[in-house]
Amino acid sequence: MSKPFSFQLFNTDGHARRGELITSHGNAQTPAFMPVGTQATVKGLMPDDVHATGAEIVLGNTYHLMLRPGAEQIAALGGLHKFMNWPLPILTDSGGFQVMSLSELRQIDERGVTFRSHLDGAMVALSPERAIEIQGLLGADISMQLDECLKLPASPDEIARAMQLSLRWAERSKRAFEDRAKQGYALFGIVQGGDDLALRVESARALTGMDFQGYAIGGLAVGEPQKVMLKIVAETTPALPAERPRYLMGVGTPHDLIEGVKRGIDMFDCVLPTRNGRHGMAFTRFGPINLANARHANDPRPLDEESAHPAARTYSRAYLHHLTKANEILGAVLLSTSNLAYYQILMAGMREAIAAGRFADFQAATEAGWAQGDLQPI
Amino acid sequence: MSKPFSFQLFNTDGHARRGELITSHGNAQTPAFMPVGTQATVKGLMPDDVHATGAEIVLGNTYHLMLRPGAEQIAALGGLHKFMNWPLPILTDSGGFQVMSLSELRQIDERGVTFRSHLDGAMVALSPERAIEIQGLLGADISMQLDECLKLPASPDEIARAMQLSLRWAERSKRAFEDRAKQGYALFGIVQGGDDLALRVESARALTGMDFQGYAIGGLAVGEPQKVMLKIVAETTPALPAERPRYLMGVGTPHDLIEGVKRGIDMFDCVLPTRNGRHGMAFTRFGPINLANARHANDPRPLDEESAHPAARTYSRAYLHHLTKANEILGAVLLSTSNLAYYQILMAGMREAIAAGRFADFQAATEAGWAQGDLQPI
Repeated sequence: MSKPFSFQLFNTDGHARRGELITSHGNAQTPAFMPVGTQATVKGLMPDDVHATGAEIVLGNTYHLMLRPGAEQIAALGGLHKFMNWPLPILTDSGGFQVMSLSELRQIDERGVTFRSHLDGAMVALSPERAIEIQGLLGADISMQLDECLKLPASPDEIARAMQLSLRWAERSKRAFEDRAKQGYALFGIVQGGDDLALRVESARALTGMDFQGYAIGGLAVGEPQKVMLKIVAETTPALPAERPRYLMGVGTPHDLIEGVKRGIDMFDCVLPTRNGRHGMAFTRFGPINLANARHANDPRPLDEESAHPAARTYSRAYLHHLTKANEILGAVLLSTSNLAYYQILMAGMREAIAAGRFADFQAATEAGWAQGDLQPI
Repeated sequence: MSKPFSFQLFNTDGHARRGELITSHGNAQTPAFMPVGTQATVKGLMPDDVHATGAEIVLGNTYHLMLRPGAEQIAALGGLHKFMNWPLPILTDSGGFQVMSLSELRQIDERGVTFRSHLDGAMVALSPERAIEIQGLLGADISMQLDECLKLPASPDEIARAMQLSLRWAERSKRAFEDRAKQGYALFGIVQGGDDLALRVESARALTGMDFQGYAIGGLAVGEPQKVMLKIVAETTPALPAERPRYLMGVGTPHDLIEGVKRGIDMFDCVLPTRNGRHGMAFTRFGPINLANARHANDPRPLDEESAHPAARTYSRAYLHHLTKANEILGAVLLSTSNLAYYQILMAGMREAIAAGRFADFQAATEAGWAQGDLQPI
């Protein structure tokens, strides 16, 4: 391993932070948005095109990869970086979230979780130790502990029980990760506690005591209002050590990203830019644009003629409308690409603003652009 | 218009020909394979990636584009080159073939064809004059006459009637094209005559008398055995003028391309490389490979480590198998790209061989590669 994992914090502006993740597969500037490579592919994009959007780190899904093609198969083929031809940093989740959202018939107990595969119905067991083993087989630069992720709303007792279980699983994950930690890889703990601020702080402090190399806030963006999510983030980040990266899992919209960074978040991942792109929706400086709408049919304007990315400035809205209506693969590809590029442009803008001490101005200008809408000539 | 259409013939080797199409949007080396951009997109590929496979000219489908988004709409947006962001030569078909294969309730009479759109059920009329008008609105470098394309087998009377009708439509197409001919664009006539060699020769001679800028052989690859198709090609090309390009429409497999070139064909188009790519099939130097097959699941070899194109030499068969089984867009994209690249590599190989006077050797070596199969280490 050429470089052990580390995190450098360069600037702060209010609670917003500008930094860098350093891994043996390269560095990633923070605040960072990680495109989701669910099944060893960021849906629709060649790896070079993912990188060309500005992405420096992607996320891989343990749940999907353990079921197909299998962690041992990927290891035998040289690991996930080689398998998907992405030589840059990879963070893998632990599988816990997808077990909750995709599989039926799951049973959770102290040992771990047993679930029925959504692919072939086979019963599969996932423990904290196995989740670490799988992520090691994949070769993740950053691994995540297994946690129990509840849907909100949930009862206070349920939330407390799941949070405590996740803490015990955090300890087991950390022990299981010892060998990889010595090799310089990173393991992040995950703060749970639902919408209970006291439990969130308790979880954050307990995890900090275990000394992870980064801390995620999990169990959010699972149905609660944005206001609730942001309040929990704002209360949790001060309970985490300043010198370690903070990752808000599964978030979010462009507005969520700005509000998250404002509250001290360094890393995000979300399927929105690619999923919505596949459904004809573009994220732009002028807010979201639904290309399926007939009003775009004769519009020669690109999505954003000043975009730094050719996918956003080359093709007319009329063409993107046509591809969307005709259900052409290229429509999904171009909009996914353009959306990922917009997310990266947004992150780069935030990083620059934090470094210059003008994050609040950047947020105001960005929100004014979204409010303007896309109807006027640009 | 910077350059009027012309064709240059550089070399021959037996009946095989090495030449160049010259258009105002650039040149294309022949023998040429034209990827099919049915709905203003070569399915799954960005235009730059189409060009990176080696393609210098693509085909657009009049039938699809007239129905959606509409020829007038594309003209208002600056024409098909601009609409689909493909600045190089475009050939459009006349719509006749798709009317036959895709629409229901069609009526053919002397004036033209009326059919029900497969999209919205509207009745649409297409005459030789309207087909020329549409292709002019699209801005095609090469337009095709409207013809009647029969399915084989058909009765001798039917074949003769359709051939004669196509000849009368050829004359009307040529008259309708006069203005665009003066602007330097090209119109090709289409030889019909089913599997009747005498009718084919009669059609070819009559069209030659009308002096088109190129000649297509239509109504093949519609169900007849390859042997029948090749016999018709072999009998037809000698009845066409040597100084004009010859285009075998809708063909074909790699073997069809070699056998077509051997019989004097200069241009081809076919959906096979992209359609089969979307279904997990790779065309390679070692013959076709079905990536859905479980035997590829752990195969670390690329499709062809010596390929000139990265799509074929970068990704493991195990990864392509995984993407195919997981029904990931990237599987369709990578295999379509790799297949188009293989087709272009094959065409480039034929051009080089013709220029060097060793076409027969090239064919023998290529067929030996296909016969070898993909099981051995490469």
